Amino acid sequence: MTTTKADDKAQAKAEYNAFLAACPSRQLLDRISNKWVVLILCALGGDTPEHTGTSPTPQAMRYSELARLLTGVSQKMLTQTLRALERDGLLTRTVTPTVPVTVTYQLTDLGHSLHHLTQPLRHWAQTHMDQVQAHRETHDAQTS
Amino acid sequence: MTTTKADDKAQAKAEYNAFLAACPSRQLLDRISNKWVVLILCALGGDTPEHTGTSPTPQAMRYSELARLLTGVSQKMLTQTLRALERDGLLTRTVTPTVPVTVTYQLTDLGHSLHHLTQPLRHWAQTHMDQVQAHRETHDAQTS
Repeated sequence: MTTTKADDKAQAKAEYNAFLAACPSRQLLDRISNKWVVLILCALGGDTPEHTGTSPTPQAMRYSELARLLTGVSQKMLTQTLRALERDGLLTRTVTPTVPVTVTYQLTDLGHSLHHLTQPLRHWAQTHMDQVQAHRETHDAQTS
Repeated sequence: MTTTKADDKAQAKAEYNAFLAACPSRQLLDRISNKWVVLILCALGGDTPEHTGTSPTPQAMRYSELARLLTGVSQKMLTQTLRALERDGLLTRTVTPTVPVTVTYQLTDLGHSLHHLTQPLRHWAQTHMDQVQAHRETHDAQTS
């Protein structure tokens, strides 16, 4: 039996399937489907509330800057999330030997590719908040 | 002081900010940044492993079909997630008085708008799994 290039491609595409609990891509989907990941990628991608232009400029940020921007994040959660993203190759951690040392984080190309997908999630949440709120009120009125 | 239309737009855009812990959009971002939400939207959007065409066809699905497709999801988690998505106006729940009753779920227009953003997340996880795995191995070898 001969296989065509299209078969090969279909084979490669079918390799991972996040619908399956045991597939590694399920765990990766779990990792990236996380509000802190979305907000960290937005921050390092330059898509912050201060940014007003059309194309955000990626930026290196210090740990303390991230902690200040992502209000409510615990030190433990921020550290854990940054470590996981660094291990997955989504960002780099650079230590500069100042006194005290300066630690900065920056997106890799892989991180940028994910940022392009997660950035719209934050915007969706912000721009559809009123609509969702209206649905909640209607729903609660009907079910109470 | 007079305001321009551009000012008004900037004002409207600045209304919600998911970087802020107390902003309702932060909680909404948390809700939608969730692997079960991503997978449920993919399923109802027709973007399932069985689907091979280029434009997936949205479909109504029964609770049991969703439970079978999303392997590893607990009944409690699936029920909770579906209820939250219904309350937020992302999907509709239809009860047909068969014996036993048939309960089906279907995306609303609002759900479709979110599905367009979350669908690429599953694909990213599946297509970048090998790259992430390679980064993890390099990282673990360097730090051990």
